[in-house]
Amino acid sequence: MDLLSIKEPSFLKSMSNEQLEELSQEIRQFLIGNLSKTGGHIGPNLGVVELTVSLHKHFNSPVDKILWDVGHQSYVHKILTGRACQFDTLRQYKGLCGFPKRNESEHDVWETGHSSTSLSAAMGMAIARDVKKEKSFIIPVIGDGALTGGMALEALNHIGHEKKDMIVVLNDNEMSIAPNVGALHSVLGRLRTAGKYNWVKDELEYILKRIPAVGGRLASTAERVKDSLKYLFVSGMFFEELGFTYLGPIDGHDFNELEENIQYAKKTKGPVLLHVITKKGKGFRPAESDKKGDWHGTGPYKIDTGDIIKPVNAPPSWSGLVSETVRKIAREDERIVAITPAMPVGSKLLGFAQEFPDRMFDVGIAEQHATTVAAGLATQNMKPFLAIYSTFLQRAYDQVVHDICRQNLNVFIGIDRAGLVGADGETHQGVFDIAFLRHLPNMVIMMPKDENEGQHLVKTALDYDAGPIALRYPRGNGYGVPMDSELKAIPIGEWEVLKKGTDVAVLTFGTTIPMALEAAKELEEQGISVRVVNARFIKPMDEKMLKSIFEEDIPVLTIEEAVLQGGFGSAVLEYVQENGYRNAVIDRIGIPDYFIEHGSVKELLNEIGMTKENVMDRILTITPKKQKRA
Amino acid sequence: MDLLSIKEPSFLKSMSNEQLEELSQEIRQFLIGNLSKTGGHIGPNLGVVELTVSLHKHFNSPVDKILWDVGHQSYVHKILTGRACQFDTLRQYKGLCGFPKRNESEHDVWETGHSSTSLSAAMGMAIARDVKKEKSFIIPVIGDGALTGGMALEALNHIGHEKKDMIVVLNDNEMSIAPNVGALHSVLGRLRTAGKYNWVKDELEYILKRIPAVGGRLASTAERVKDSLKYLFVSGMFFEELGFTYLGPIDGHDFNELEENIQYAKKTKGPVLLHVITKKGKGFRPAESDKKGDWHGTGPYKIDTGDIIKPVNAPPSWSGLVSETVRKIAREDERIVAITPAMPVGSKLLGFAQEFPDRMFDVGIAEQHATTVAAGLATQNMKPFLAIYSTFLQRAYDQVVHDICRQNLNVFIGIDRAGLVGADGETHQGVFDIAFLRHLPNMVIMMPKDENEGQHLVKTALDYDAGPIALRYPRGNGYGVPMDSELKAIPIGEWEVLKKGTDVAVLTFGTTIPMALEAAKELEEQGISVRVVNARFIKPMDEKMLKSIFEEDIPVLTIEEAVLQGGFGSAVLEYVQENGYRNAVIDRIGIPDYFIEHGSVKELLNEIGMTKENVMDRILTITPKKQKRA
Repeated sequence: MDLLSIKEPSFLKSMSNEQLEELSQEIRQFLIGNLSKTGGHIGPNLGVVELTVSLHKHFNSPVDKILWDVGHQSYVHKILTGRACQFDTLRQYKGLCGFPKRNESEHDVWETGHSSTSLSAAMGMAIARDVKKEKSFIIPVIGDGALTGGMALEALNHIGHEKKDMIVVLNDNEMSIAPNVGALHSVLGRLRTAGKYNWVKDELEYILKRIPAVGGRLASTAERVKDSLKYLFVSGMFFEELGFTYLGPIDGHDFNELEENIQYAKKTKGPVLLHVITKKGKGFRPAESDKKGDWHGTGPYKIDTGDIIKPVNAPPSWSGLVSETVRKIAREDERIVAITPAMPVGSKLLGFAQEFPDRMFDVGIAEQHATTVAAGLATQNMKPFLAIYSTFLQRAYDQVVHDICRQNLNVFIGIDRAGLVGADGETHQGVFDIAFLRHLPNMVIMMPKDENEGQHLVKTALDYDAGPIALRYPRGNGYGVPMDSELKAIPIGEWEVLKKGTDVAVLTFGTTIPMALEAAKELEEQGISVRVVNARFIKPMDEKMLKSIFEEDIPVLTIEEAVLQGGFGSAVLEYVQENGYRNAVIDRIGIPDYFIEHGSVKELLNEIGMTKENVMDRILTITPKKQKRA
Repeated sequence: MDLLSIKEPSFLKSMSNEQLEELSQEIRQFLIGNLSKTGGHIGPNLGVVELTVSLHKHFNSPVDKILWDVGHQSYVHKILTGRACQFDTLRQYKGLCGFPKRNESEHDVWETGHSSTSLSAAMGMAIARDVKKEKSFIIPVIGDGALTGGMALEALNHIGHEKKDMIVVLNDNEMSIAPNVGALHSVLGRLRTAGKYNWVKDELEYILKRIPAVGGRLASTAERVKDSLKYLFVSGMFFEELGFTYLGPIDGHDFNELEENIQYAKKTKGPVLLHVITKKGKGFRPAESDKKGDWHGTGPYKIDTGDIIKPVNAPPSWSGLVSETVRKIAREDERIVAITPAMPVGSKLLGFAQEFPDRMFDVGIAEQHATTVAAGLATQNMKPFLAIYSTFLQRAYDQVVHDICRQNLNVFIGIDRAGLVGADGETHQGVFDIAFLRHLPNMVIMMPKDENEGQHLVKTALDYDAGPIALRYPRGNGYGVPMDSELKAIPIGEWEVLKKGTDVAVLTFGTTIPMALEAAKELEEQGISVRVVNARFIKPMDEKMLKSIFEEDIPVLTIEEAVLQGGFGSAVLEYVQENGYRNAVIDRIGIPDYFIEHGSVKELLNEIGMTKENVMDRILTITPKKQKRA
């Protein structure tokens, strides 16, 4: 059928399972074809084609509410709800969002991006339904990884306790697990789908007879299970004990099995856990055989060869630069231990892990735990490197406050993906970290101007022994600058003048420095002498340099790729107020008070006026020499 | 023995269990006597006397590390580690802290206050020990309530997976649970303490024979179990499956049982879960028979009668005012649903729960889940009231950002215990919320000047339908002002002039208003005309009023009982900068850049210069009329 003509999913009701299979193949081909041009989360979406089709056939969205946890697996849902025609704009500026968006469709009932939120939101919706005495199904779809996040566990506990009607779909795409623990579970699954599971002697004994053998197998399997909780989850008992009716495991690519179990779930009172086994990348060989996670989310690729199109000779990534510098120093310093919450690939920590297998810990999607593990390490005179994306550090705010800063512990926080991140959009922009860290006592915050300074700031952080220290670095690659062979620590709080100038001073750091330098250069040609300062320490600031600038009485422009309110520019305003520079002229450029959607970083910077042209205009506005120029 | 003479716990090694029992009674009497004068967490500490004594007898602190989750149960530990002589200063300014403090003793290896952090910290310490190839025991002590916090669950998952040597003490003081589920567990417990538990056919069948009967009892019990997870925890299976060796349940007041199990745990490889049943308030009848939680933490009391000494005729508490106003409005508005993370008593929501049992949800210690449940409710056109302490809202920062503000949902956040809280000290001060909320798009933040305005701002919040809105209110009681019988919404962003004045303007809100008014009154007598503005909207600010003030060109002093960096005063600086009032004279009073310890609120305010005298000085400093006065 013509996928572009789909307006909403009710057409599925009259289709047979054979027709649904045909449709699924068309959707797969559509995804493989479109994403080869735009890039996107191909693996997760190819895995949920049949599941999504089945959910939309057997439920009535949007009366029935389907919530996509994390949300990068919502493309099939978007196709079935009338958005196939927008796929050429996927994750592009003003185009289709890569995550559910409530303003795109009434079928997107819950927006996501961060993981593990869907169960809590579904609980809120279930309470609302019951208070309003309405009838509807509520169906959160959550992956096995997201389920290990603390808030998802909090939610399971509460949902089971309250016994709200809800159908939780556990989308389990770790195929390596399923066959191993499947023996007991297909027994349980058969018992349960056959009718309401009763805890009676006969059935119990039926299972028990099989346990000794299966038990032996389980014990050896357990050793190999990467995530222990997962083992509990797939055992079904976990959910049953929590108050859920467990159905599964179900082949998530088999329409008959899906239908049978969904229909059974719809008839079941109280919370149901539908354990669905899917295969990431299903139907596209390169993605299906992916072991490293390359095909989870990808840029454009060649369909025929399965080659991902990568930039040639790109400079090293920021994540790689930081992690590899930590690794280098770790050879000399045994105190260094790396911690990542489920991002060993993204944070480029595989090399570190290979060299120091006992000093690298991937704790799963568990930012809170990761952060406090780092604090615990630091109490023992170790030097933990906590690599965490800016947007995900939000989830560990209290642990940074209460465990790290309050105890003033020597934790090195590598804030990866700081600043605008582009295509992932508003849920992933790393723009709040300065505002949520700057007010914390004992915290040092830095950002390097280039990779070479980046490696020196890593050294600075690892040498520092007076409390927590954070290094922000952006998504993507560096500039390819020459690298010093010797690492050197930079004195805490010391800024650097990158370009001298006498009329006006620009204070900025990180990614916005090149723009500031270009603007300064152009203005120089117009007779305005612009000083550009690399304010690489966001806290503490270089008060000596600030003093000299404000005593010279030249105007100041601050630029930051982060929110304006409470940010670096505000710190400069606070400095000026506290030190009584009453006539100081200051302007600030940064991210305004709204959430920035997806698009290329360049387009987003343009939208918020973070351009060379605007910087020049703003400098001219505050600089007295402006008049002379005219 | 003379408890005051104890320097460190090694004297316990040579004592018999009979002597330990005698010592425990002395410790109990010491606690009951001392806390009757100072107040403190009497219930939790009376419950862990034998447990603490036993841990210090069988482990070698501080080489072996005992971590107290939450930490309010660390008094016995403090006595045994040489701090009995300081108990007359407990929770007082510059006195003994009510929580573990690393600078008080080398035996306090981990500071707490917020719950559920001890397992993650213990994991960090275990990693450190193993990297350093040292030998030591690591013993986090965590309550059954704290174990339901998401980060504790994240930690369990990781600890079990890594199989680190660690002895987790589960201090289970919900006596109502233990007898009910004890039948199966004493069987399991006997099996396990008798030797390494083996999953072999014989033992399995031994247990299984008993299941049908016990199973029946469990099923009916499960219905009554408040926290479903708890049921799983006490079943032991949960921990075993996660990779822990489960030992228990153990009578936490029986030295022989404690000794036997601790010794066994010390010999066991990998993580051990020691399930200890204790009785809160043990040995002091009023605390032992406490059903409402009055004796969890208390002020001074009379030992003989067990009467808690309460202030007479105190005005209504802020929590009560807000919750009861919500309740009143909820009678007319069915969309209102209240959510609390384990604080129905503290947040005074019991009345609401009684009147609207289907519209009030206590989700347990689970701030993240609580916050996103509220968001889920709001997507369904409900009006959730999320009551949460300022310091605990820190744990839900990402949920406020990602789920509430980003989706711009109508959630009413009641920020309880905002500002300095006094005796609980630095882990509990509610001083960061303005700085961590102000930079979030769509957020409205308010604080009332008195109870009457408080009730109107509750009405304002519940009427508001353009996004999230937060109302801060302090710990403790109101002023007893007359209350309007009719509730009225106050226009969003509208400030109020409380006292006219022409020389200088003070902008402040909430608790600091009386001080500002007093200072203004005294200055008036000295010929300085001080305007006092009730800046009850912290975001958005009253820009019309700001404009008029800065166009009058009078100096401005901002006062906030919250951190200065990125706070309300900074918002005023940002306003001034953005609007080009270049010669504006501004001063800011607020909480400086360090963590404020425990003491009375008055003492703490004095420490940071938030006094009438300092306000007067600061006003004089910025006011031109100062010269005339001299």
